[in-house]
Amino acid sequence: MGASLLEGEDGPAVLMNGAGRSPYVIVCEHAGNRLPKRLGTLGLAAADLERHIAWDIGAEKVSRLLARLIDAPLVLQRYSRLVYDCNRPPESPDAMPMVSEVTAIPGNRDLTPAEKLARTREIYRPFHAAIADLLDARACDGIATSLVSIHSFTPVYKGKPRSVELGILHDRDTRLSARLIKSFPNIDARFNEPYGPKDGVLHLLNLHAAPRGLQHAMIEIRNDLIAQERGQDEWAQRLSVPLSQAQTN
Amino acid sequence: MGASLLEGEDGPAVLMNGAGRSPYVIVCEHAGNRLPKRLGTLGLAAADLERHIAWDIGAEKVSRLLARLIDAPLVLQRYSRLVYDCNRPPESPDAMPMVSEVTAIPGNRDLTPAEKLARTREIYRPFHAAIADLLDARACDGIATSLVSIHSFTPVYKGKPRSVELGILHDRDTRLSARLIKSFPNIDARFNEPYGPKDGVLHLLNLHAAPRGLQHAMIEIRNDLIAQERGQDEWAQRLSVPLSQAQTN
Repeated sequence: MGASLLEGEDGPAVLMNGAGRSPYVIVCEHAGNRLPKRLGTLGLAAADLERHIAWDIGAEKVSRLLARLIDAPLVLQRYSRLVYDCNRPPESPDAMPMVSEVTAIPGNRDLTPAEKLARTREIYRPFHAAIADLLDARACDGIATSLVSIHSFTPVYKGKPRSVELGILHDRDTRLSARLIKSFPNIDARFNEPYGPKDGVLHLLNLHAAPRGLQHAMIEIRNDLIAQERGQDEWAQRLSVPLSQAQTN
Repeated sequence: MGASLLEGEDGPAVLMNGAGRSPYVIVCEHAGNRLPKRLGTLGLAAADLERHIAWDIGAEKVSRLLARLIDAPLVLQRYSRLVYDCNRPPESPDAMPMVSEVTAIPGNRDLTPAEKLARTREIYRPFHAAIADLLDARACDGIATSLVSIHSFTPVYKGKPRSVELGILHDRDTRLSARLIKSFPNIDARFNEPYGPKDGVLHLLNLHAAPRGLQHAMIEIRNDLIAQERGQDEWAQRLSVPLSQAQTN
């Protein structure tokens, strides 16, 4: 295989507050926009690496604040989704996209199987192993868990503005999402917008929550609302209300 | 944690024919009835460890013969499902059952969280990691995969005889199972019998196939039909027919 992709660098997963006593475990797979040193800038300008295509703007901060407010464990992912989108399996062309929204990603062109496998083994798998480690330990301790992933979406996608403010995404199991949507009366909150299960965005929940029978939901916040500290505080506070209430199974 | 459960012993996963060129990957999570030395006999008589409660009688042989016939990779699991049932998440009471069918398992009574976690970390997780490693490598090589798990069931369960010979189990994605069921005209073959998704038996497929979008099916053969070599040969041959045909997605 030769040198590893991340040799001498941090692994992808950051576990915070692992012993947190909330029934909720928070994950944020698009928290970071870091690139492995060996991949340079993927041929992109510095400004592109600050855009939504690289990460979920504001999501890490909201996740950290929320986890603190409700005393929940949190698993963050450090690397840009342009290197490996941890909410996609390696079977998906979106896992290592050649084009994101309308921007070509030169460093993802003509990847060899070995290059794809290195990203899969060193970013995708260890991040998901960190989540599984946490869920395994809680299960063996007899702690009931619900899994919530925190994301943000761009207010304008391919030139089209989006008015939805909060998306609550679910597939078959609607236990948690049905409860959550009632908690935001003054927000434009919608089920499965701006994406839904057909877009392949429920991979993380399909991988960890459904096979374990855990309640789960994916939260999508429009990123103009959480780009700054004030909005991050407001939204963490807002999300903490339903997630602080006793869990009903 | 102290000494590991399997220290000095084989790991749970056996990969055979990893470079096999079939579009099918075969898994057999209840292939073996081995117990880790540190767990003694779990308080059971030797005869109990040969029964269906301990493993899927005949399934390993059918899996090996089938994998050879169709040139498929095969992942077997060596340890008894009484230690850890690799077709269950650690959240399930059936993962380390205190009672199996009508037999009490003394060695599974009053397990501590640390004991449960050791079994989860040393049997469940490495077995599933071996499957994921194989699927990741195939995905990065651009090889389309369908996942088939091979099981056997007892002809008499809790005193009740079963006449079904072949179960083809599926949940939402019926692409492969719908094709398979047509291939056994002279067999009593049924969908989701003697178990189905509601019994939690689709865990392995829910964990590996559904999140990756892979076609999949779980095969259950009545074990009196494959307890001996002749039946094992017959059934491997019979299953190889539809699994040798070109895959249609």
